[in-house]
Amino acid sequence: MTKKNNNKSLIKTVSLTPPSLQDNTADAERLIRAIKSRLKTNTVDIDLYLLRELPVLLRNWKYNVRCILLKDRSRWILTGIANSTDTIPITGLAVDLGTTKVVLRIIDLSTNQILAEHSFDNPQIAVGPDILTRIHYADQDEGLKKINRLIIDGLNKMIEELCSSCNIKPADIYLISLAGNTAMTHLFMGLNPHWIIREPYIPVVNKPGLFKAKEFGINVNPLARVIIFPNVGSYFGGDLIAGILFSGIYKKEDMSILVDVGTNAEVLLGNKHWLIACAGAAGPALEGGVTKMGMLAGPGVIDRITIDPLTNNIKAHTAGNAPPKGICGSGLIDLAACLFLNGIIDIHGKFVPSMCGSRLKDKDGVQHYVVVPASESGTDLDLIISQADLDSLIRSKAAMYTILETITSSVGISLKDLSVFYVAGTFGSYINPKSAISIGMLPDLPIDCYKSLGNSSLGGATMAITSDCLNEIDNIRDKITYLELNVNQEFMNRFSAAKFLPHTDNSLFPSVKRSRSRLET
Amino acid sequence: MTKKNNNKSLIKTVSLTPPSLQDNTADAERLIRAIKSRLKTNTVDIDLYLLRELPVLLRNWKYNVRCILLKDRSRWILTGIANSTDTIPITGLAVDLGTTKVVLRIIDLSTNQILAEHSFDNPQIAVGPDILTRIHYADQDEGLKKINRLIIDGLNKMIEELCSSCNIKPADIYLISLAGNTAMTHLFMGLNPHWIIREPYIPVVNKPGLFKAKEFGINVNPLARVIIFPNVGSYFGGDLIAGILFSGIYKKEDMSILVDVGTNAEVLLGNKHWLIACAGAAGPALEGGVTKMGMLAGPGVIDRITIDPLTNNIKAHTAGNAPPKGICGSGLIDLAACLFLNGIIDIHGKFVPSMCGSRLKDKDGVQHYVVVPASESGTDLDLIISQADLDSLIRSKAAMYTILETITSSVGISLKDLSVFYVAGTFGSYINPKSAISIGMLPDLPIDCYKSLGNSSLGGATMAITSDCLNEIDNIRDKITYLELNVNQEFMNRFSAAKFLPHTDNSLFPSVKRSRSRLET
Repeated sequence: MTKKNNNKSLIKTVSLTPPSLQDNTADAERLIRAIKSRLKTNTVDIDLYLLRELPVLLRNWKYNVRCILLKDRSRWILTGIANSTDTIPITGLAVDLGTTKVVLRIIDLSTNQILAEHSFDNPQIAVGPDILTRIHYADQDEGLKKINRLIIDGLNKMIEELCSSCNIKPADIYLISLAGNTAMTHLFMGLNPHWIIREPYIPVVNKPGLFKAKEFGINVNPLARVIIFPNVGSYFGGDLIAGILFSGIYKKEDMSILVDVGTNAEVLLGNKHWLIACAGAAGPALEGGVTKMGMLAGPGVIDRITIDPLTNNIKAHTAGNAPPKGICGSGLIDLAACLFLNGIIDIHGKFVPSMCGSRLKDKDGVQHYVVVPASESGTDLDLIISQADLDSLIRSKAAMYTILETITSSVGISLKDLSVFYVAGTFGSYINPKSAISIGMLPDLPIDCYKSLGNSSLGGATMAITSDCLNEIDNIRDKITYLELNVNQEFMNRFSAAKFLPHTDNSLFPSVKRSRSRLET
Repeated sequence: MTKKNNNKSLIKTVSLTPPSLQDNTADAERLIRAIKSRLKTNTVDIDLYLLRELPVLLRNWKYNVRCILLKDRSRWILTGIANSTDTIPITGLAVDLGTTKVVLRIIDLSTNQILAEHSFDNPQIAVGPDILTRIHYADQDEGLKKINRLIIDGLNKMIEELCSSCNIKPADIYLISLAGNTAMTHLFMGLNPHWIIREPYIPVVNKPGLFKAKEFGINVNPLARVIIFPNVGSYFGGDLIAGILFSGIYKKEDMSILVDVGTNAEVLLGNKHWLIACAGAAGPALEGGVTKMGMLAGPGVIDRITIDPLTNNIKAHTAGNAPPKGICGSGLIDLAACLFLNGIIDIHGKFVPSMCGSRLKDKDGVQHYVVVPASESGTDLDLIISQADLDSLIRSKAAMYTILETITSSVGISLKDLSVFYVAGTFGSYINPKSAISIGMLPDLPIDCYKSLGNSSLGGATMAITSDCLNEIDNIRDKITYLELNVNQEFMNRFSAAKFLPHTDNSLFPSVKRSRSRLET
């Protein structure tokens, strides 16, 4: 996303023929004519605010103008102009509006280089950490206004900080793109999300499109527009559409799958001809959220684990190489995989006492396995994983695999037919696909099929302001068929089969079988 | 313009399928889908303000909605919604923004019936009666803001009055169209008209398009849009484009001409294939502005005159049959025609003393003709016309005729080739074409070729809000070739020839020759 001098850039520098008696076209149409020669368009909308400034600016700038242009479906909008000799960057802001984290990225729209990036906690956490609490809060008297204010004020504050970190002013931001789940997007727009969580689960809008930043109270350039990513429904939001845009799945001949793992697992399967999506609860275990030692990313979090097959010694890698304090989702999957591949847990995910040695402890009738002894931990306590933690992880991984099987079988294909398997989100950046395969959470594809997309929502939001792709975004959204996951007998059968490590049907995971072969002998 | 149940109406009543688990499209897209079935469009823009209200309104109204729709070039905009059972009229406001008079008309957009109409003096007259003074004023410190405020405040006040006169609220106005000359339009929009009057005469914008009423500070429905008629240049404004739309010239196979007579004569010639326009100074004489007895329309103004050929007695018809106080443009042309046809003035427009009798008086060496003696006048003074008044009228009528000859000959046709001759404006409603022909101001076409358009600017503005014709308006504007009137030798030759009554070339006016034949014998 840092291509220089991208000719898809939304900034065009144009030279206007100065007016004469022979050519007395008005200022606005003179500018549009010059733009037209670059864009092959017949209509460029110019705001009243800009029209009022235009004649003096054009003459001061001797008719050489940098134009910031945005295509809204069928029409182009001039969202700003600058003197062609001016060196202050014309920038855009990409926003990944997460329920927990909000990530902002400022991009120089002339070069498409990232100037600054920062994340902050969604200030709506003050109301409640989860979506449901926030939606209920919004239903109270003035609740919607207040919760909307929280995110708007938070964004304004961070925009100011981020701008000063890269020596620009908020007024230098001419374009914003915002990708968030359906509820977060509603709360940002001041739309009541009341009906999102109530049958039949209706958002206020699917394709919000383009608005002026000042309509939302966002303090950037007064002409700036906000591109809001569309949603497919209450449970498949703009963050995922942004991810699909970023992945490019919708342009490829081969079939790919995109998985965004969190408390909810959102899955998109398809190619250039069709796209099918579903979302389902995978449980918080995959995020490391339920284990006693679970924590979010941060110094001291265990993100990678290996076990010496001879000594069963655990080697835990931590962020910042700090003494270990807890474990995140990817670490937990590594841990489960290592425990399983080394026979410390069996195919049911139960501890095998003979293999655990002194690490296995009993506390109030529940078995615990010491991952990091107190002597080596950053908390001066044993870092442990309990049988309950493992059970919960297995239910989550089984749900994940079942969703993957359900979506592929709904279009009559097998997971083996996938050419690329994208894993999105922070989780996707850290997860070791080999481990996820080992526990049967992800299918047994060649490791190089797995591609981590990182923050694909932010990536898609960045694309939206660095090239003309609003129609593309709409097309992606419109192409998606949403598959309702009915928890019927077939789903339950699949789920039960997936609750084994790696699976009841071992033949689905030949590589895991090979890895475990020494245990069988 | 008062067709009932016009199917071109911008109001569509739609019934939405209520949401269900099988059909969980969002509220906005559900509404758009219903609209789409009526309009065959893929995009309908909905304002944020409306989106915020939409879910509650749709549910309260049981998904039956009246929609006010406006097409802005390629996209449709939803400018308002109402309960389908609501009986408050959904209205639009057409504005003829004249330099002197502003005329407002409120139209029920469901039936296209006129609910109320009123005119008021343009409050900018306080700054100066003419365009030039106002443009200079706008150049002063805060001048533009102040002069813009004058018209906006004036409009808001009159809108309120007009609304209460027909029992609606300003919030019931969802659409406004505004047709004015280029300078008045600029001042309304808050655009600096500085460059309009300075070589090379550049407006800020030619095709302003569509704006929100609240951007201008017009207090109507918060969602209301304003359609602003485009201009061809500094001297051919939106009022004329509205007139062309109203006349329908641009749709006809035959060639027609449209003349708007005032201090400036604006002329449009063409048919469905081409349109050519020009504007030129005709002098204020045609408006009755310079004669001592000249006055604008009002009670006591002489608007029609006949002379008894036997007694030379003048019969003056006045507005409201009040005692005569003055004369307006159409009366003056009648007067000149009668004087000429009865030999009281000669082909040079000079008084023929032998024919004038006691009505001819001398005052300070200038000859005056008593039109109405003091005993019969409403002012207790003689109402007189001087030789200087007549000279001025003849220069104006010669300029008018020269402009008509120039524009027709520029495309190689003769005035005789015209099938319809439209005369626009208040002037056009009162002028007697026979009189105008008699003095050689208008060409000697059969009388039934002449059609008075009335307030064609208001008529066009009305069309803009009662049917989807924004593209048509743009097309008219783009089709017009503007002919610069160069005052060269050819023009001067024509002008000199036209300074005779009716013309040097008598063969151009056979009907006048016949009428005057008794004088020749």
